[in-house]
Amino acid sequence: MADAEIIAVGSEMLTSQRIDTNSLYITDQLNALGVEVHRKLIIGDDRALLTDAVQSALTHAGIVILTGGLGPTEDDVTRQAVADALNRELVFSQEICDAIEERFRRRQRNMAEINKRQAYVVAGAEVLPNTNGTAPGQWIVNDGRIIIMLPGPPGELKPLFANECVPRLTKLLPAQVIRARFYRVTGFTESDLDALIAPVYTKYANPSTTILASPGDIQIHLRARCGSAEDSERLLAEVGDPIEALLGRHLFSRNGEPLEEIVGALLRERGATLSVAESCTGGMVGQRITSIAGSSDYFVGGFVTYTDRMKTDLLGVDPALISQHTAVSKEVAAAMAEGARARTGSTFAISITGEAGPESSTGSPVGTIFVGFVSPEGPPEVLRFAMPGDRPRIRGFATQAALDLLRRRLMRLDEP
Amino acid sequence: MADAEIIAVGSEMLTSQRIDTNSLYITDQLNALGVEVHRKLIIGDDRALLTDAVQSALTHAGIVILTGGLGPTEDDVTRQAVADALNRELVFSQEICDAIEERFRRRQRNMAEINKRQAYVVAGAEVLPNTNGTAPGQWIVNDGRIIIMLPGPPGELKPLFANECVPRLTKLLPAQVIRARFYRVTGFTESDLDALIAPVYTKYANPSTTILASPGDIQIHLRARCGSAEDSERLLAEVGDPIEALLGRHLFSRNGEPLEEIVGALLRERGATLSVAESCTGGMVGQRITSIAGSSDYFVGGFVTYTDRMKTDLLGVDPALISQHTAVSKEVAAAMAEGARARTGSTFAISITGEAGPESSTGSPVGTIFVGFVSPEGPPEVLRFAMPGDRPRIRGFATQAALDLLRRRLMRLDEP
Repeated sequence: MADAEIIAVGSEMLTSQRIDTNSLYITDQLNALGVEVHRKLIIGDDRALLTDAVQSALTHAGIVILTGGLGPTEDDVTRQAVADALNRELVFSQEICDAIEERFRRRQRNMAEINKRQAYVVAGAEVLPNTNGTAPGQWIVNDGRIIIMLPGPPGELKPLFANECVPRLTKLLPAQVIRARFYRVTGFTESDLDALIAPVYTKYANPSTTILASPGDIQIHLRARCGSAEDSERLLAEVGDPIEALLGRHLFSRNGEPLEEIVGALLRERGATLSVAESCTGGMVGQRITSIAGSSDYFVGGFVTYTDRMKTDLLGVDPALISQHTAVSKEVAAAMAEGARARTGSTFAISITGEAGPESSTGSPVGTIFVGFVSPEGPPEVLRFAMPGDRPRIRGFATQAALDLLRRRLMRLDEP
Repeated sequence: MADAEIIAVGSEMLTSQRIDTNSLYITDQLNALGVEVHRKLIIGDDRALLTDAVQSALTHAGIVILTGGLGPTEDDVTRQAVADALNRELVFSQEICDAIEERFRRRQRNMAEINKRQAYVVAGAEVLPNTNGTAPGQWIVNDGRIIIMLPGPPGELKPLFANECVPRLTKLLPAQVIRARFYRVTGFTESDLDALIAPVYTKYANPSTTILASPGDIQIHLRARCGSAEDSERLLAEVGDPIEALLGRHLFSRNGEPLEEIVGALLRERGATLSVAESCTGGMVGQRITSIAGSSDYFVGGFVTYTDRMKTDLLGVDPALISQHTAVSKEVAAAMAEGARARTGSTFAISITGEAGPESSTGSPVGTIFVGFVSPEGPPEVLRFAMPGDRPRIRGFATQAALDLLRRRLMRLDEP
């Protein structure tokens, strides 16, 4: 009973422009009730296909929620398909019809004949009044499973679900509390990371663990579901704490904050300021740092020095360094960071220079990235990376690597 | 055969934070081939559920496309579920294993043992090489139906689908010649744009017209499908030409190129160079310009002057201007552009200063944006905008507005 399936009905949902967002809202609401969504289906206005889908959903899920297809037109087939799937009749409700007519009257309009279609309900269904539109929702109990029909427009669906469905579901469901941790990790490949932590999480079905990878940023979701908040927290800790220990310095976020928000908070805590010097990333680091509201508290500015000449003119990088080591080198990365810090007076500075591809301009292989860091203490530090993938991936990795070097230094982790 | 079902695999796709966007791309590609998507399924990492789903899909659809669940970890079940559904074996491919190992070697890393999981293919499957990741795609023909497995990361899925699947599908599908125009437009709201061009395109089902809006960038896809290239071209012109006339100077792209690519080409043609001075966008303009391979031919560099002090120190903006007009003003935007041009020696410079929110720092309302442009001829030009939306939208609009001002000046359109 604790598993749900959501079926979004409407051919427009199958075009390349439309996304079903109702299911995101419903998923949130269901999770809060301890119900997991294990399938989502998006289907066109096809009575036979939809009938099949409802029948198949009823073999998997205790709760089946249909959204959309309750309008007045020919191609609104949800009512009929659900009736077919349950082998029940559609019955006309004078009460609903009057309510729809009244709604039109309040707007000084006459109800069109076709709106009467919206007054049909599946035999035995409980009607869920829709105060924001003409199509009411319907609540059906069938062999101990629940089928809910909701109108598609979010402005109608959301209040209807919150006011009519959540209270009914709460009565039926065992009280459960979900607690989650949302880790973000960098400096691992997905496979290395999994090899490291699988021995811990695979022992548990609850909390559930899902792992998601993007360049330089692996996300680990832990979700515990128990009868009480205490039990959920205890289970989370039982699995999460050893995972955190294994991830060590690679773990940069416990609540899903992006890396730019983490370093921003660290800079603010320390009352420190930051400047950046970017070559191949062309402004990505600055863009990410300033995507955080209030970043002007700690970010002073940066330099995009895309040519050798600009590295010299704007950052004071010695041309001899460039001719001797090329612009993609440890030496130039160090000089860029020093130049940015000297010219902005910031506490810290980070720099990036490298080959983002598709061609190499300096002879270093595409994917070669140098990331520099300089602080008031000691000489600049530079890390070298060989980044995989195409130009966008390499630039994404490089940006993440620079922000993470800054994070580790601000936290005084594994200093050289 | 002309109907497809898309199955997105991954428990993370069932959380309230994640949406399946791969299917939008695939839908576009399939529609262009005359294939309709009639169901989309999103399903967790559950072998039994997925096996059922594949079997049910094969009863409805001629083409079944699975995305995701091809990773190396325990919870990547797509390979196994498809094998189960087709009642075939999974066989180990030394060739794939070597390719994966080689990929790790190129990155100076060792392949983890679990990556070998990715070297298993469904018996009889054709392997679709993945140049951007470790998991190859798989192409299976079963009882005249086609099953395609693709990796989940969009950066891997898109090229793989375009390069490996589209050609194979084209061979199998009835000959139809698709001709398309992919317009991109800025300076309109979606509703104003639609009101303008709907009278033209609504008269035609073929070519199909789809409109897609993102901040400052509305995309219009026209797709004509006929038996011959000539007929498709003729239909396209019949609808496209009058639309182009209506869009006028707002039309910046006819083949879907992003604005940064268009201005890059214009700068290269003219043998001109560009620098940028960014405040509230923090590097977004530089980042977009340098996202184009070869942008070093015309982009010299930029300044991210996030504080008043940096505007003065790095760009030479007179502090009196700032104290008199605030940093969010026509005067400062002009001085920023002039400063960037003077200090980099570039032919042109553009600047952005404004209030991205959530709070205003200067008293100007959130969304107030000044965009500056300066060329070798005459004084700087500054446009003022009141941008709608939240911080990311305002920053996106501002970046687009700056790039578009540059485009229009390079094309000598509607000069003041």
